[in-house]
Amino acid sequence: MLRPVSALFGNLSKSKRHCTLPSTSGVSVMAKSKYEYVRDFETDDTCLRNCYIVVRLDGRNFHKFADQHNFTKPNDDRALGLMSRSARSVMEELEDIAIAYGQSDEFSFVFKRSTNWFRRRASKLMTHVASQFSSSYVFYWKEYFGEQPLLYPPGFDGRVVLYPSNRNLRDYLSWRQADCHINNLYNTAFWTLVQKGALSKTQAEERLNGTLSADKNEILFSEFNINYNSESPLHRKGTTLIWEKVDETSTKKITVPKEGEKEITFTRSRRKVTAHYSDIIGDSFWNEHPDILEEDS
Amino acid sequence: MLRPVSALFGNLSKSKRHCTLPSTSGVSVMAKSKYEYVRDFETDDTCLRNCYIVVRLDGRNFHKFADQHNFTKPNDDRALGLMSRSARSVMEELEDIAIAYGQSDEFSFVFKRSTNWFRRRASKLMTHVASQFSSSYVFYWKEYFGEQPLLYPPGFDGRVVLYPSNRNLRDYLSWRQADCHINNLYNTAFWTLVQKGALSKTQAEERLNGTLSADKNEILFSEFNINYNSESPLHRKGTTLIWEKVDETSTKKITVPKEGEKEITFTRSRRKVTAHYSDIIGDSFWNEHPDILEEDS
Amino acid sequence: MLRPVSALFGNLSKSKRHCTLPSTSGVSVMAKSKYEYVRDFETDDTCLRNCYIVVRLDGRNFHKFADQHNFTKPNDDRALGLMSRSARSVMEELEDIAIAYGQSDEFSFVFKRSTNWFRRRASKLMTHVASQFSSSYVFYWKEYFGEQPLLYPPGFDGRVVLYPSNRNLRDYLSWRQADCHINNLYNTAFWTLVQKGALSKTQAEERLNGTLSADKNEILFSEFNINYNSESPLHRKGTTLIWEKVDETSTKKITVPKEGEKEITFTRSRRKVTAHYSDIIGDSFWNEHPDILEEDS
Amino acid sequence: MLRPVSALFGNLSKSKRHCTLPSTSGVSVMAKSKYEYVRDFETDDTCLRNCYIVVRLDGRNFHKFADQHNFTKPNDDRALGLMSRSARSVMEELEDIAIAYGQSDEFSFVFKRSTNWFRRRASKLMTHVASQFSSSYVFYWKEYFGEQPLLYPPGFDGRVVLYPSNRNLRDYLSWRQADCHINNLYNTAFWTLVQKGALSKTQAEERLNGTLSADKNEILFSEFNINYNSESPLHRKGTTLIWEKVDETSTKKITVPKEGEKEITFTRSRRKVTAHYSDIIGDSFWNEHPDILEEDS
Repeated sequence: MLRPVSALFGNLSKSKRHCTLPSTSGVSVMAKSKYEYVRDFETDDTCLRNCYIVVRLDGRNFHKFADQHNFTKPNDDRALGLMSRSARSVMEELEDIAIAYGQSDEFSFVFKRSTNWFRRRASKLMTHVASQFSSSYVFYWKEYFGEQPLLYPPGFDGRVVLYPSNRNLRDYLSWRQADCHINNLYNTAFWTLVQKGALSKTQAEERLNGTLSADKNEILFSEFNINYNSESPLHRKGTTLIWEKVDETSTKKITVPKEGEKEITFTRSRRKVTAHYSDIIGDSFWNEHPDILEEDS
Repeated sequence: MLRPVSALFGNLSKSKRHCTLPSTSGVSVMAKSKYEYVRDFETDDTCLRNCYIVVRLDGRNFHKFADQHNFTKPNDDRALGLMSRSARSVMEELEDIAIAYGQSDEFSFVFKRSTNWFRRRASKLMTHVASQFSSSYVFYWKEYFGEQPLLYPPGFDGRVVLYPSNRNLRDYLSWRQADCHINNLYNTAFWTLVQKGALSKTQAEERLNGTLSADKNEILFSEFNINYNSESPLHRKGTTLIWEKVDETSTKKITVPKEGEKEITFTRSRRKVTAHYSDIIGDSFWNEHPDILEEDS
Repeated sequence: MLRPVSALFGNLSKSKRHCTLPSTSGVSVMAKSKYEYVRDFETDDTCLRNCYIVVRLDGRNFHKFADQHNFTKPNDDRALGLMSRSARSVMEELEDIAIAYGQSDEFSFVFKRSTNWFRRRASKLMTHVASQFSSSYVFYWKEYFGEQPLLYPPGFDGRVVLYPSNRNLRDYLSWRQADCHINNLYNTAFWTLVQKGALSKTQAEERLNGTLSADKNEILFSEFNINYNSESPLHRKGTTLIWEKVDETSTKKITVPKEGEKEITFTRSRRKVTAHYSDIIGDSFWNEHPDILEEDS
Repeated sequence: MLRPVSALFGNLSKSKRHCTLPSTSGVSVMAKSKYEYVRDFETDDTCLRNCYIVVRLDGRNFHKFADQHNFTKPNDDRALGLMSRSARSVMEELEDIAIAYGQSDEFSFVFKRSTNWFRRRASKLMTHVASQFSSSYVFYWKEYFGEQPLLYPPGFDGRVVLYPSNRNLRDYLSWRQADCHINNLYNTAFWTLVQKGALSKTQAEERLNGTLSADKNEILFSEFNINYNSESPLHRKGTTLIWEKVDETSTKKITVPKEGEKEITFTRSRRKVTAHYSDIIGDSFWNEHPDILEEDS
């Protein structure tokens, strides 16, 4: 498990360390060096500079996973909470993620266009995100599902996409939020018909076949007295995570000479990951948080 | 969490599903389609055919992780066991991994040169491996560390390397096993000097400075009566995982007409992931398991 | 040399043609189909969308080529003219090149950020540019060098670089023009010292060693009465090629009933490649030609 | 046209030269350095090691080119000769091309699997080939077409494909030769029907519609007394270029003391590019030239 102790005292890269190990000269090292040519087969996958780097994760076979873990339909708040918690863990552990957006079993992470983390190597960025997200999902499971056991370790797959302009990035995020909206409206109508309307799944599907958004809104409102726009923003808009400065106030007792004990209030400004369930398609969100995007030029 | 119900009955790809949803025509769908051009920014990363695809994972900041979780030095069998368990989970969940090799905080997974899993897309292969390994590491932690708690979700990074020939692939694996040998011999000598020889870490490092393999073997033998070659093969050779046919015998009671109850023994041949702690640099291992490699031509 | 005649009447892609050939069924076609799997080894190299695609060509061993063809020093106007002529041929033959910039033995071609020529395949774009430029260089040689023979076919190598923003693209072009300036000032000073100052090459080099731009300007002015800023803009600034609307006037005689023959003047606006020898680092050039760049968003 | 003179005496790379120029410090150099960040946008495109690198060129709009230059149908030996001459020029100018194969308006160049030319950078390899081929095509035009003028500079596009094994490479070459066979048999039959059989092009096409290879052979033989297998191997098999050792004999007169003048015969073994018009699908060609391929392992 451990690297040679000489590595303890530096932050040499793995390869460097092996080269500089004082004690590893000799037969085995020669044997090893014979094979080291294989390192040249690795190719460079640096992401083009001045582009946003988006890593999107998707749950693997999550339909089955949801069934096996009795997820509430159409939305399971425990599951959505766990996705967000895992995404926050990714943002806190990795560097330079400016914004993340999640819905259903997917989450997109946007690295700053100027990031130089891991020298912008695509493979490193996406595997780190996939790994940290997945270990967090299992680690925090209990916080959201309590005693209900996790039956097996879930998997997520990832991909990297580059966006050269702010417009392109915003259109990407709009695409995902529009996807959230369409799916959630459909699912809300479908499950309402099944759960409250006593339709079979087949009947509900037929009922919704060919309907427009307005039709679905109307069904919900006139038949079930549900105003879709009053439904939970978390379900309708998905979860947007950003970094924000938050004031934290704390008090501390100190002893002042000649005055005795005094209580002092500190206010500290800290950067924290905060969650928003608002529209990110229009301009308001971006005007309110002007630091997320970097200038195009 | 859930996809629209129409997706329940097919295994259409995500994108397809959205296109064929009967009910999602209308305003929102039009709004969404406006953004869909962003999909064209994704680039193809298909791995060259007829090459072995190696995905290697490395623990992120595992030196610190090992300290914080009190890993035994120079080797912690619980930690090594957990690595292997997670690797086995990867092999069982993903398709077409012919062999995996691990040591210390790293594990390499070799996909068959003829695999067509995920259309050989590098991003999908490496993120799946990284994700499944990481969630498994947390999931199976308790099996290896019992009541000792996992303090935080660990991360692993990955990369993809292609090898066009059997010789190249074997040299890659030889390189990793030679690395294991060099590090383990050094670490064994170092920690023996510290733990049994009462040297400080600095003294131990100085003592080993400039020594060859033979010197370290000699120190261990003459001063501490340790024959390095008798040390645990797991530590000296690392862990090799392959698929093997294993006969499983089970008995079952059946009732035969006119004869009454009888006990019958079944033998079933099953493919299982098996672990080996042997040399994979020489030819013996490969001669004994001729099915791992595919012909060069 | 010829494709099957059925291909004469369509513009099917090569591969399509072979598939749809009515007459090629049979033994040989089967034999061929056995090998066609090799096509899958070709990888996709689509350029990221919404980025400028720059193809830069550099002369191969042009130092030697210049010597062998007795190029005038420090600048040979025939050679520079031929470079420009070849670049114009590239712009006229290929689609979607918005601007090209050349100096010395190099030329950069900038494809529109929105181009979809050859589906933005990097290999196609750069080989087409390299090929068309090279064949043109030989084809137009005589126009610039008259009876002086071309001794052998010259070579140029190319590369592709993507730029996501207008700023990045302008900085790229500024970089090349700054390079032109630095080299030309040095070369002008150097060859003046040799040709008019009677210094040996070694002496001239030593003389210029460590000098700043201002020093070189001063040497030229005070010792040789040369105002560097009055030197040819072609040499100091390089050649910028763009597309411009040019009015072309022509007259034509027509016969009008009852009026007899009349002469009519036509003015037609045509897009032509025009050459500029101006500064492209500052804003003026770009303000005067606002159609070259496309908006960042 | 010229680089700074200091570059005359070294073979520093272009970038290096600029950095080390003693005389280019100062204002302009600072100005230039501000832009140099744009170099980081260039990405690495190293070809995977231990793979054959194939660069294939295809004529651009050669159907029209052939018509405009009155190429003989179905095969124009001048045009085929010029293609071969240009390919030979590529082999002689560039390093490490082991074999080239051409037919019709295409030519494939195979770099050794162990080549390190231009550090295996795909862009450099393919643009060099495209450039050298294209300039040679114009340069040698006269040798093949005599007084018939070349009307405009032709273009060729290129691509790079990697093949990891000898089998894959041979299958690639077999694919191209099978393509040659199918097209040539069709074209021979088609043009014979038109030229000797007095059919219109449409009639000839209809006549051949749905025929197998055997049928076309039969038409040629029974109706026109043409044995297809006796047709020119150049047309049926295409052109294969390889390097071979050729003995060259020359005589020289020398003066020997006390013996007077004597004539001496020298035989020198030289590597030359030689052309073959034979089958390269079967094993014979490869057995006769065992040096072309490198071992798979």
